[in-house]
Amino acid sequence: MNTNKSGVRALVSLCVAHGVRQVIISPGSRNAPITIAFENHPEIKTYSIVDERSAGFVALGMALKTKEPTAVVCTSGSALLNYAPAVVEAFYQHIPLVVISADRPNEFINQGLGQSIEQHNLLSSIVKKSVSLPNIIVDNNQQWYCERLINEALLAAKTGKTGPVHINVPLSEPLYELTSEPFENPKHIKYSSVAKAQWSIPEVERFQKTLILVGQNQIGQELNDILSELSKQSNIQIWTEATSNVAHPNFIDGIDKLLASFSINDTLLFAPELLITIGDAIVSKRIKSYLQQVNNFEHWQIGQSPEVVDTYKHLTHIFEGNEIEWLLSFKNQLPKNSNSTYQSIGLTQKQQLEKAHNTYCEAADYSDFSVYDAICKALLNNDIDIHVANSAAIRYMQLFERSASQTYYCNRGTSGIDGSTSTAVGAAMVTEKPVWFLTGDISFLYDSNAFWNEKLPKNLKVVIVNNHGGGIFRLIDGPNKTKVLDQYLETHHQLDAANICAQHKVAYQIAQNIEEVNNGIAWLQEQESTAVLEIFTPRLLNSDILKDYFKYIKNYTYGNN
Amino acid sequence: MNTNKSGVRALVSLCVAHGVRQVIISPGSRNAPITIAFENHPEIKTYSIVDERSAGFVALGMALKTKEPTAVVCTSGSALLNYAPAVVEAFYQHIPLVVISADRPNEFINQGLGQSIEQHNLLSSIVKKSVSLPNIIVDNNQQWYCERLINEALLAAKTGKTGPVHINVPLSEPLYELTSEPFENPKHIKYSSVAKAQWSIPEVERFQKTLILVGQNQIGQELNDILSELSKQSNIQIWTEATSNVAHPNFIDGIDKLLASFSINDTLLFAPELLITIGDAIVSKRIKSYLQQVNNFEHWQIGQSPEVVDTYKHLTHIFEGNEIEWLLSFKNQLPKNSNSTYQSIGLTQKQQLEKAHNTYCEAADYSDFSVYDAICKALLNNDIDIHVANSAAIRYMQLFERSASQTYYCNRGTSGIDGSTSTAVGAAMVTEKPVWFLTGDISFLYDSNAFWNEKLPKNLKVVIVNNHGGGIFRLIDGPNKTKVLDQYLETHHQLDAANICAQHKVAYQIAQNIEEVNNGIAWLQEQESTAVLEIFTPRLLNSDILKDYFKYIKNYTYGNN
Repeated sequence: MNTNKSGVRALVSLCVAHGVRQVIISPGSRNAPITIAFENHPEIKTYSIVDERSAGFVALGMALKTKEPTAVVCTSGSALLNYAPAVVEAFYQHIPLVVISADRPNEFINQGLGQSIEQHNLLSSIVKKSVSLPNIIVDNNQQWYCERLINEALLAAKTGKTGPVHINVPLSEPLYELTSEPFENPKHIKYSSVAKAQWSIPEVERFQKTLILVGQNQIGQELNDILSELSKQSNIQIWTEATSNVAHPNFIDGIDKLLASFSINDTLLFAPELLITIGDAIVSKRIKSYLQQVNNFEHWQIGQSPEVVDTYKHLTHIFEGNEIEWLLSFKNQLPKNSNSTYQSIGLTQKQQLEKAHNTYCEAADYSDFSVYDAICKALLNNDIDIHVANSAAIRYMQLFERSASQTYYCNRGTSGIDGSTSTAVGAAMVTEKPVWFLTGDISFLYDSNAFWNEKLPKNLKVVIVNNHGGGIFRLIDGPNKTKVLDQYLETHHQLDAANICAQHKVAYQIAQNIEEVNNGIAWLQEQESTAVLEIFTPRLLNSDILKDYFKYIKNYTYGNN
Repeated sequence: MNTNKSGVRALVSLCVAHGVRQVIISPGSRNAPITIAFENHPEIKTYSIVDERSAGFVALGMALKTKEPTAVVCTSGSALLNYAPAVVEAFYQHIPLVVISADRPNEFINQGLGQSIEQHNLLSSIVKKSVSLPNIIVDNNQQWYCERLINEALLAAKTGKTGPVHINVPLSEPLYELTSEPFENPKHIKYSSVAKAQWSIPEVERFQKTLILVGQNQIGQELNDILSELSKQSNIQIWTEATSNVAHPNFIDGIDKLLASFSINDTLLFAPELLITIGDAIVSKRIKSYLQQVNNFEHWQIGQSPEVVDTYKHLTHIFEGNEIEWLLSFKNQLPKNSNSTYQSIGLTQKQQLEKAHNTYCEAADYSDFSVYDAICKALLNNDIDIHVANSAAIRYMQLFERSASQTYYCNRGTSGIDGSTSTAVGAAMVTEKPVWFLTGDISFLYDSNAFWNEKLPKNLKVVIVNNHGGGIFRLIDGPNKTKVLDQYLETHHQLDAANICAQHKVAYQIAQNIEEVNNGIAWLQEQESTAVLEIFTPRLLNSDILKDYFKYIKNYTYGNN
């Protein structure tokens, strides 16, 4: 019989998965579920030591000798603080000591009950990682969160320069309820770093459907080259965004278009067996919810950081190191022949979508959509840097063709609107290249001091698509149902950029139809100092056209056009 | 003319050394010295932007494009908080933004003056590193500290996954005093990581005197092998301690003996041109003060951590990665021939010292010194693990010969006495090997619950050297001059381990002369469960004998024997 606390069973299973074998338990009641679970696991050897100060050092001695993470378990209250001398020794001697403390649930801390103190973060300055698990697991998100936190702590103990970690486990009464369920297999996140010259990549031959998803990065030509090589493999699809800054005919570059077009059958056909992610932020929301819902794939995260970033809730392996070297090793270890149709499925769909997209664009009414289409067409193949503001601007830009001669930038670290213009100004100040900045009206007005700069760069071309408010909120299902949309979400307004430009002596033109847009872009290209083109679009029509577009490309792809 | 604040000049020099070229300054008075210094540096391009929020993003745009660290400088007060939106974007987009804030001196914070807020650590959760420089630099320690903090912050911005950092600069009035002094060359700490298969090691051929100092580690046979190879080079000396766990006739293994023997001439002869450190803590205090006083050498720190740990105040280069791989690369890049006499000087001195040491040991009176000598001789060449307590025990053990069959452990992470016995107990619980634990009386009594363990390991042999107090304090110059030595420093007592052993049914014997010590060790070797030998030594004589020993070996080496 085992404890009925599923989080505790996951904790014990993951300790075993990460190499813990010796566990020293100091007696107590609050930690009974943890004690029961460790006692029950056939791979674990448990010992009882009363004095936690001594127990901490005994575990340290075991970890010194076995060179494996070793756990100590105590009850709630001051017990935990008796581990502190051993923990600080482990911290400076770099020993993977895993401190597990039972705790009362948060709501009872400092409420006059016995053995309840602020345990969370109590050791944080002398451990590599400190986590506190959720008390009650009510849904899959909580389960995922609980398992992820345990993985994060145990990975921190073992990776890089090793060291102690603290896992705090709040537990509600009753504490002694048992179950006959066996240990589950919670998600075990593995880790590799490039300690040796050649990456060892586990069993790549087993994957017939590998999806490489390229997030925001400025890695440059080397990444484009190796991905182009990989895109010749029949079992690989490579999905990119504007901010991925890679381009090749075999890459699928309109993720939102692609996902919008999916039939139920496509959802299964495109589901990867292996997801490889490179780079930082992904703009597309659709791909996050799509991949979170796919069953059973492996996700390998490649990059310079050992942090657990589990955007798709399937993270299985972190490879810490140089992306290019990893991809080269990966390519060399791929089997030469594969009969997979995965890539051809992707490229066929891509071609269909391009036809649908082009047909729709030709007929689209004047709107944000047609304006961004015109801008992208006018700038295609220009050797320029393109800065794009959050958030409608970057989402629209993702729908249209781009070329390898263009480098895209966007503040997707936190996706704020607060400094998009200033960022473009700064980038333009340190390059001779033309820098185009594409922004909505709210972003531009928010950063209204961006032009207050005595060395405003002459190579900066600003395009404002002014739809008189945060039209992005009309595209999302929640906000468009509420009465406060106009005033408090969308920020509907009648402002424009004319006075800001006048204040700072910046050349300024407006456009109100596609012909004026095209003339305006030509005018911008000719300007020899900072200039602004402000394009006004019909506020209420924009969201309808975008929704109609996504409907159209789906119908077209399945023969209903 | 430049600012007369030397810390600010160091800040600017180090920014340049670490690759900063663009600096955006927002106007203010408190930051005038920083502004003046940046304006004065020929490698720096400065820009003025009033609104700090915009300035932060402009710098971010510059860093995005140049891929170099870019600095922003503001005055004290809320100005700093206006950088926060750009800093958090830089944090999640991994951009090396260097935030420099002027501050009032600590003593004036929250005292009702204008623009004085708690700036230090204000951004700490959204930067990679946050440092606050010393306000006034009164001595070399402060200068070293100031330069080290600047290096730490700038290294954090550039290394691993890059990101923003915050350097807070408290500045006293007057702020506008000028000097005609040029920029100094403050210590610039470089960094390399093993991004490529082969380490590139700068100009190894220039060093005729390379000292490899091996700190505490459990790396094992591989380290012994590569160091043995390196010890054949005529320009290399390898210095080790008991806890280095390496042994070879060419290694110099008694650092304290060696340094105690130095004539003024030796101080210069042994001074390295290059110091290479591997492993963690070094026990010897003498080597720390010796190397801190040597002029002009390079110090390369090799290991798994990017942290700046500048024990010897000469750190010049951090190589982050696997020690063995680095040493192999180093060896391959060494020139084949060298006429250096550096190694032979070291080995000659070592031989002299061994003779002196042996002569002294033969005649030494019964004391801690002769007891540790007897223990080490009895255990030499035994295939055992040896745990040693802090602090007299490990210092004595360093003086005597050890063999490669012995593995030494000691809690030198923080050098506490709080859990030495428990650590040895834990280590013995997970091995079949005999584990010997050598401890002083205070350490043993402090950790008195270490035997409260139902699975007390049978292979544990404990030797307590009981001199009735912390005799270590009699060896140091400060404490032995004070009246409170007996009661508050040395902890003079009449306790012994007999009752603790009786309580936990542990076999126990005592020894009071060398013959009993030798018999006691033989008795311990025969015991088939945990056993304790407690050796009593003459409290007041011990420190005299040790001081006499160091005097003797110095005189002997220089022909006065």
